[in-house]
Amino acid sequence: MKLNCDLGEGFGSWKMGLDDQVMPYIDQANIACGFHAGDPDVMAHTLAMAVEHGVEIGAHPGYPDMQGFGRRSIPMTTDQIIHCLHYQVGALGALAAAQGARLSYVKPHGALYNDMIKDDAICDAVFAALACYPQPLTLMMLATGDATHYRNKAEQYGIELYLEAFADRRYTEHGYLTPRSEEGAVLDDEQTLEQVQSLFSKGVVVAADGSELPLNADTLCVHGDNPHAVAMVKRIRELLSSL
Amino acid sequence: MKLNCDLGEGFGSWKMGLDDQVMPYIDQANIACGFHAGDPDVMAHTLAMAVEHGVEIGAHPGYPDMQGFGRRSIPMTTDQIIHCLHYQVGALGALAAAQGARLSYVKPHGALYNDMIKDDAICDAVFAALACYPQPLTLMMLATGDATHYRNKAEQYGIELYLEAFADRRYTEHGYLTPRSEEGAVLDDEQTLEQVQSLFSKGVVVAADGSELPLNADTLCVHGDNPHAVAMVKRIRELLSSL
Amino acid sequence: MKLNCDLGEGFGSWKMGLDDQVMPYIDQANIACGFHAGDPDVMAHTLAMAVEHGVEIGAHPGYPDMQGFGRRSIPMTTDQIIHCLHYQVGALGALAAAQGARLSYVKPHGALYNDMIKDDAICDAVFAALACYPQPLTLMMLATGDATHYRNKAEQYGIELYLEAFADRRYTEHGYLTPRSEEGAVLDDEQTLEQVQSLFSKGVVVAADGSELPLNADTLCVHGDNPHAVAMVKRIRELLSSL
Amino acid sequence: MKLNCDLGEGFGSWKMGLDDQVMPYIDQANIACGFHAGDPDVMAHTLAMAVEHGVEIGAHPGYPDMQGFGRRSIPMTTDQIIHCLHYQVGALGALAAAQGARLSYVKPHGALYNDMIKDDAICDAVFAALACYPQPLTLMMLATGDATHYRNKAEQYGIELYLEAFADRRYTEHGYLTPRSEEGAVLDDEQTLEQVQSLFSKGVVVAADGSELPLNADTLCVHGDNPHAVAMVKRIRELLSSL
Repeated sequence: MKLNCDLGEGFGSWKMGLDDQVMPYIDQANIACGFHAGDPDVMAHTLAMAVEHGVEIGAHPGYPDMQGFGRRSIPMTTDQIIHCLHYQVGALGALAAAQGARLSYVKPHGALYNDMIKDDAICDAVFAALACYPQPLTLMMLATGDATHYRNKAEQYGIELYLEAFADRRYTEHGYLTPRSEEGAVLDDEQTLEQVQSLFSKGVVVAADGSELPLNADTLCVHGDNPHAVAMVKRIRELLSSL
Repeated sequence: MKLNCDLGEGFGSWKMGLDDQVMPYIDQANIACGFHAGDPDVMAHTLAMAVEHGVEIGAHPGYPDMQGFGRRSIPMTTDQIIHCLHYQVGALGALAAAQGARLSYVKPHGALYNDMIKDDAICDAVFAALACYPQPLTLMMLATGDATHYRNKAEQYGIELYLEAFADRRYTEHGYLTPRSEEGAVLDDEQTLEQVQSLFSKGVVVAADGSELPLNADTLCVHGDNPHAVAMVKRIRELLSSL
Repeated sequence: MKLNCDLGEGFGSWKMGLDDQVMPYIDQANIACGFHAGDPDVMAHTLAMAVEHGVEIGAHPGYPDMQGFGRRSIPMTTDQIIHCLHYQVGALGALAAAQGARLSYVKPHGALYNDMIKDDAICDAVFAALACYPQPLTLMMLATGDATHYRNKAEQYGIELYLEAFADRRYTEHGYLTPRSEEGAVLDDEQTLEQVQSLFSKGVVVAADGSELPLNADTLCVHGDNPHAVAMVKRIRELLSSL
Repeated sequence: MKLNCDLGEGFGSWKMGLDDQVMPYIDQANIACGFHAGDPDVMAHTLAMAVEHGVEIGAHPGYPDMQGFGRRSIPMTTDQIIHCLHYQVGALGALAAAQGARLSYVKPHGALYNDMIKDDAICDAVFAALACYPQPLTLMMLATGDATHYRNKAEQYGIELYLEAFADRRYTEHGYLTPRSEEGAVLDDEQTLEQVQSLFSKGVVVAADGSELPLNADTLCVHGDNPHAVAMVKRIRELLSSL
């Protein structure tokens, strides 16, 4: 199971995240592409760090909405989503190639990531975008309790999947993330480490109702927003190494 | 001698240029990349038209300045210019590749185009951007009276050049464009056709002081802004076919 | 009954609408405020035209979305809508005041205009924004078959209303606009003039089902997008003058 | 002598500066207006803090350049600068008025602030903008060794001035700021406190060449970027109180 982290989320003079501190502990860097965060300089800088640490590089495209940080659903047609993804992925891909690197996957960001689960037409738009992208790219998306629907879609579009679990989020018994607005939605440190261990060793998480939920995850989302988050990534990395 | 035209300069609901009307008469489409004009949808639409008409496709990147339409010099470092170009060219390249097409050249837009001639550091930044771009791309730039400086640079960076002349602009005796602010800077229709004929047949233009100026041009910039401009492109195309 | 028109919808080098041609025939200019269209220069220029023609000036604020031209619903909280309106109205108000002019009303644009009818919380946000604005401003909003709900709200917030009818749109029997996607939603020229005459003389429109619908409108929305639209505004103005 | 600080420089999800920590120690809050930093929500939030602490409120407008944080000179005509200032100041003014507050001054930001000293046409544009603004606003600008030129301009345009000194910057013997690129341009803590004391008690600073330079300053620029900067503001405030 790999560790992935959203990175390159600065913009111009604005910083976000301790990218340099978290980079040594992760396997996969999801790099923002300038529509919800990032700009050409931030992207190039983040790519250079990823290359230096031998971290796998993914595009992290979002809705075109800097002020909303890609966290607001912007109504877009299927074609608009496809163009918007090709644009962002192509931009990051060129910056990566100029450093001798190569994108290996795409993880939609924020509202677009969530809309894929809520709205199957948007999900199809994202799959279609990758299916007609000039280079094979794996799609990183939410690992749900039953991934059959998404695995079928992946097969139909000829796309590989990285199913992603969240280290620090409580799952519902149906295998979705408990909304942040609900109590206990975000796990504390010990609960997080327990969930990681359980996921890695047994492929299950303990859901909100106490039931064991099988969750087939290829990669684990971790955060590098602040020193505590970085310390947790280090602990998760150590835990995984020890198992 | 080819005919090139700046296209794809709409943005969202805003239209600019009669792209569909001029496309049948040109050889090379310089397509805006979303920083000074264009957006992912406009880009995809313009690419589709270029593909349909078998027109050679070039990226037309500019300074990041929608409100100024890329006509204002934005102070940027060499690295920033390189990242900014890679971003835009990569974005257009991906949208093109999704349609089975391929970029063959880059023509900087507006103030960036002019700054290349005024400021050699900016010129080098553009050459460097293309030199480290993951795909060979020809650079389209201004044909000046003496292109030795730029040909040397092209050789040094390993870049091919398309030198571009302007059908409807009077040249100074030193081989630069007469500033638009000066009388007679923009040629009328008959003068334009004479200049095209002279350029094509003899490789010279008549400069502002009446002298004959040798101008080695690979491509001629034409415009598709309005019906009259489109009619002129048609006449220029007919003239070139008849010679 | 007044005639109002959306104006100042250019942006940088992009033009939209024949503002100078339609200005002489209208009573009220709804001027875009730079979030979905317009920029400080376009706004100042449009204000100057309105002042010259003695046209009443309204702010036409929209969701922050240039690429979508304010036609996409952007999820925003009540506070965000209020701040977003104050910002835009204040900006236009200052530009107006610098020309000795004064805003008299606010007409929300595009998706925000429609969302007011669809989502009462958004409607309240707009009323609240005007209620705490430092200057009394009339709210221009859709005239529906039964305006009681909005008149009550207006009283509650201490806001005056301009209820707006559309000259060229067919109404449903419930007093809403027939969606553009349905056949007959947009009236032809003769139907438009009939609707204007009926509205002005009898205060009714003929709804899509043939029934007569009372519609209490203070102002009529007309368009200046193209020469035909401007010609229609002229005919509507002449019709109103003759009645 | 007052203490002023640039505040409200966040944007959407991006934070900048410890506004809440520095607000209690300053007299004047220069609030960004959404063109180089800030957005309607950040502005409203910053205004609320200023109101709570009884801090004088100034607009801090900049060139339209979020990515460059207003630190790049954007070529603009006089009219464009005036419109751009009216827009920003009007927007902040409306948000302030909605909270029962009032702007009292304008301090141009970044490159625009510097361009006023470098380019007299830009300086005149700023003065002209304030002269035709519908409300009297004091202009905060750089205190130079000899302010006669700017005092004359102020009289000519009917504008009041707040001349601003920098607590932590070394001055040249000609009364300008030593460029940051030069050694010793930024003072250390003790030097800063000495300069504050000297400015306040004797109206002079010790210039880079060791000479005493008279500097007539109405206000002192302090910073709230980080905990150390905030601690320094606290020390400066204590020093001023003790004198």
